[in-house]
Amino acid sequence: MPKVADQWLEDVLIAVYQRPAVTREEITRATGLNPASVSHALQFLLHTGTIQKLGALQSRGGRRREVLKLNAESGYFVAVDLETTRLRVALTNLIGDVRHQHEEDLEFGQELDLRRLAHALDRVQRNLAAWQRSRVLALGLSYPGVTDDSGKVTAVNLGWRKFPLAEKLRQVTSLPIFLETSCRTYALAERWIGLAQNTPNCIFVELGKGVGAGILADDRYLAGSSHMAGELGHITVEPEAPDQCNCGKQGCLEAIVSSSNIVRQYYELANGSPGPAGGPVNAIFEKARNNDAVALRVMDRVGRALGLGLSHLIVLFNPRLIVLGGDVTQGYDLLLPRIRRELTRNVPEFIRETELCVTRLGQDIGLKGAALLAFRNSVKDPALLKKLCKPIAEALEGGRRARRTRSVIQA
Amino acid sequence: MPKVADQWLEDVLIAVYQRPAVTREEITRATGLNPASVSHALQFLLHTGTIQKLGALQSRGGRRREVLKLNAESGYFVAVDLETTRLRVALTNLIGDVRHQHEEDLEFGQELDLRRLAHALDRVQRNLAAWQRSRVLALGLSYPGVTDDSGKVTAVNLGWRKFPLAEKLRQVTSLPIFLETSCRTYALAERWIGLAQNTPNCIFVELGKGVGAGILADDRYLAGSSHMAGELGHITVEPEAPDQCNCGKQGCLEAIVSSSNIVRQYYELANGSPGPAGGPVNAIFEKARNNDAVALRVMDRVGRALGLGLSHLIVLFNPRLIVLGGDVTQGYDLLLPRIRRELTRNVPEFIRETELCVTRLGQDIGLKGAALLAFRNSVKDPALLKKLCKPIAEALEGGRRARRTRSVIQA
Repeated sequence: MPKVADQWLEDVLIAVYQRPAVTREEITRATGLNPASVSHALQFLLHTGTIQKLGALQSRGGRRREVLKLNAESGYFVAVDLETTRLRVALTNLIGDVRHQHEEDLEFGQELDLRRLAHALDRVQRNLAAWQRSRVLALGLSYPGVTDDSGKVTAVNLGWRKFPLAEKLRQVTSLPIFLETSCRTYALAERWIGLAQNTPNCIFVELGKGVGAGILADDRYLAGSSHMAGELGHITVEPEAPDQCNCGKQGCLEAIVSSSNIVRQYYELANGSPGPAGGPVNAIFEKARNNDAVALRVMDRVGRALGLGLSHLIVLFNPRLIVLGGDVTQGYDLLLPRIRRELTRNVPEFIRETELCVTRLGQDIGLKGAALLAFRNSVKDPALLKKLCKPIAEALEGGRRARRTRSVIQA
Repeated sequence: MPKVADQWLEDVLIAVYQRPAVTREEITRATGLNPASVSHALQFLLHTGTIQKLGALQSRGGRRREVLKLNAESGYFVAVDLETTRLRVALTNLIGDVRHQHEEDLEFGQELDLRRLAHALDRVQRNLAAWQRSRVLALGLSYPGVTDDSGKVTAVNLGWRKFPLAEKLRQVTSLPIFLETSCRTYALAERWIGLAQNTPNCIFVELGKGVGAGILADDRYLAGSSHMAGELGHITVEPEAPDQCNCGKQGCLEAIVSSSNIVRQYYELANGSPGPAGGPVNAIFEKARNNDAVALRVMDRVGRALGLGLSHLIVLFNPRLIVLGGDVTQGYDLLLPRIRRELTRNVPEFIRETELCVTRLGQDIGLKGAALLAFRNSVKDPALLKKLCKPIAEALEGGRRARRTRSVIQA
């Protein structure tokens, strides 16, 4: 077999990854590699079982063109989605399909005990066959916070301030670890398998208990000089507003439009005073749908703040598409007309209209994004690439050997 | 001479360009090329005269290391800076030093007659020797507007709406043309020869008759899906403000903080009614420095709006540095404390402080930026790279031949 450069493998795997079925010619076009390099890489990947033949196309000239696809079961990832009030851990195949899953509630604002995470990691890997176990490549983790230059994570909603997340994770798993802020993970999922396929300039806006943006500019993730780009929730949209934000400021977008703040505003207005308030945000949307005057006032304010915030994104980033996610999108029917009105007021006519939509990736978006994150980084890492491209036949054989050994011990 | 890839030449030229003096080892490190490729490229560029030996360093081990530099006179550009009220055209050397210059006033908002530009192009090239003439590579042009997908330019302040700028320019010059929005050209100048050297995440904010931002994220220029990213002047900072912007909206940052709007606000407040107002913005700053109450009120409002606008840039882009330019920076002493107060209010504590400063490139920033733009694009273009790397000795010889021919004809 001729020598195959890691770079060719990486480029070919990414090209194959993003398409359900692909021909050799399409791969050559997508990667910009020369046809001989693509041939060598494909020969190698077909041999190892990382890529499979799906069938053949008969072209008009009578030439057969093979159709190829990624063998999604040739490797696995542990994907972790840390939401503000829920921990989800999954074993996924290469493309983020969940194979085993574990989920538990977290207490909002309480520091996460990593022993709970270790336990979850163990649970999802427990059912793997031995040959599969040798092909778990890495752990991808999505978290609702920011990382500083020294690698410390601040995630107010998880009770972390300068928390050494990567260091702590290395105490509970030996897998290579790839971490990313939730919004960027979500944007990655939209770009690779969601609504932003073919859209190199797009923004994912999370509207949940937290508010933030994952920004893709010319297909590159905007991180900023200290990984804090996209903190949309903390731009000031109402300079004089009394609404107190978790970040310590007032008048932040998040303090007005996050799901818990929508609920809070409703009860403050309805009861005439701040007080204990909770429950799902959709209850407030339901009231607004039933023409509850207080709920409609809240909708007006939220739509105005959100429209202004989104207008800043449009004017400053000029994205083709903004994908919205998070539980506040349950009220999209109510908010969209209010947002549109603000966009008309606040975006100049000469800036082409940006499309707005709601994610269709559902609640698995974080797990899928974490798996994609792990894939994207694994193919760049020579050791992991080698592991991924280890012939599957050998792994199966290794698995059988291991089983035989075990039966002997048990016997 | 061994075959030298265009990519090596491009990488080496850019590495040499950004340093006044550089060793072979530094070039290798900066480009990431292998040492043999760097050697081949340098051998070629030294032979052609595009790079020169500056001297040698004696290292401690006694090894001599040659110090190299770009031969800044091995090629020329025509640089055009279209400001809102002034046309500047220059012939520059490779690094943007002005060799010949022409300048004339434009009428604000009046469509520019391209015959005037043709005349200016002719004037700055007239004094070139024949051998230099053969080395004028391209025209770089900086303009205060945006280009749509079809290449049409809208620059309200120049009276252009969907103006086919490149097409019109091709009627007055045969040089290859590279165009860019002013703010991005300015950011390029800051990054390569100004305050943002070593700062891959930085933003240039123009505060003149127009307001806009040139954004560098991880050393890539943010253009957006239709080249309109960075329209900072048109974010809404006072949703209820009556101030009418040229873009058709109200409450835009530009409508409050541009130099002409600062003057306008002063006279509106001082006279109690809108009316004819003009003159340099510095006159208003002088009044404020002399404690004129009306001028101070204007400063407060401008500082508040500007601080809020800059806070959005910091929270969304997380830049290391923001460089301010334009005639409004004449009032930096008055505005800075007001801006700082707003940044403290509107940027969360966990986002690292962004440095603010005023450009030191002076009024040539646009010409220098246009020349850098032309250089950056020329080394990527095989035909222009070939022209740049044509041995200078040959060009000189060609020049002498041309002179001889001319004397014969004249005789």
